[in-house]
Amino acid sequence: MHGVNVSAITSPLVWEHVQPAAARRLLTGAIDAFAERGFQATTTRDIASRAGMSPAALYVHYPSKERLLFEISRYGHQAALDVLRDADSGDSPAERLRSMVEAFTAWHAEHHTIARVVQYELAALTPEHLAEVATIRRAISAQIEQVLSDGVADGSLAVDDLPGTTLAVLSLSIDVARWYTPHRGDPAALGKLYAELAQRMVQT
Amino acid sequence: MHGVNVSAITSPLVWEHVQPAAARRLLTGAIDAFAERGFQATTTRDIASRAGMSPAALYVHYPSKERLLFEISRYGHQAALDVLRDADSGDSPAERLRSMVEAFTAWHAEHHTIARVVQYELAALTPEHLAEVATIRRAISAQIEQVLSDGVADGSLAVDDLPGTTLAVLSLSIDVARWYTPHRGDPAALGKLYAELAQRMVQT
Repeated sequence: MHGVNVSAITSPLVWEHVQPAAARRLLTGAIDAFAERGFQATTTRDIASRAGMSPAALYVHYPSKERLLFEISRYGHQAALDVLRDADSGDSPAERLRSMVEAFTAWHAEHHTIARVVQYELAALTPEHLAEVATIRRAISAQIEQVLSDGVADGSLAVDDLPGTTLAVLSLSIDVARWYTPHRGDPAALGKLYAELAQRMVQT
Repeated sequence: MHGVNVSAITSPLVWEHVQPAAARRLLTGAIDAFAERGFQATTTRDIASRAGMSPAALYVHYPSKERLLFEISRYGHQAALDVLRDADSGDSPAERLRSMVEAFTAWHAEHHTIARVVQYELAALTPEHLAEVATIRRAISAQIEQVLSDGVADGSLAVDDLPGTTLAVLSLSIDVARWYTPHRGDPAALGKLYAELAQRMVQT
């Protein structure tokens, strides 16, 4: 994938909640390794080595490679949901939609390395962990579906297929993580363009 | 990833041009293996075994695992380009856009397993092979950019950012491969919805 040389450790995503520092180094090392080689091809030795530790030391902090993926996936999904909720403001459904799409798109450009791991490695989670992540995914979807539904109710937005359009709006932003590299432009500008395109999708 | 149990060999994509049959079995086995475990974690032994062959027999047909990926990637991209070109018909830029987005979206739903391999494993190609695939990717992009540009020229479509909107239209269809599973609906119906949404993105 493109852009894998950008270390996740330099990302503005805040990992300070992960304590102690050794656990945090393992987690950011795992993000880089999964983004570069995929979950299946990454060994715990590889992750430990990126964190300057022995494979045995990794197991002090995480019982398995899957547990690291789950922590990354849960945190990444929760961060994306928080971005949507924080951006859900405005005087009309159209303004709220623009604000959310703008923020959600910019987040997927800025955090494209984490977003790729989170989106493309879901099948590697255990059923229990996948179920927990799926709950956050439903909340993300509900956030967009609600504003479209509010717009239909007050007659300010035109939506023929509510779940299909909800998925399309989210999909447009999420796919930014696949193709985005810093030379493709500024995340904020991309957010503004996508806010405009999403609003056009549903305007009356 | 979801849907990896759907064998690529059952896909309507025509692999008959790959001769002899042993080479074709290796190729479809590689698609399934790459989709299931990723390129890096797949061994030539795994691919050979899916084709009912020995690892040594694989090398009779393909010099490397990367060569298999390249054949899949080149064919997948060319098939997607052909779909766009065949669908580029209609009396107005808006009609041409609708027709292309409808076909391109349905293709990504139907062939989601191949499309994922093709889109997510680009970084595993050699620089020479990536350059060859990039040529087809530029032709795909040019196909959409041309119709938007024609619509701007005759005043029938409104596009502020031509490359950005081109990328967004393609991205919306391509991301279908990430989330699509047969229980998410009919590829043809999805194509019609996305044609409508894409047209709305650029209507005056």
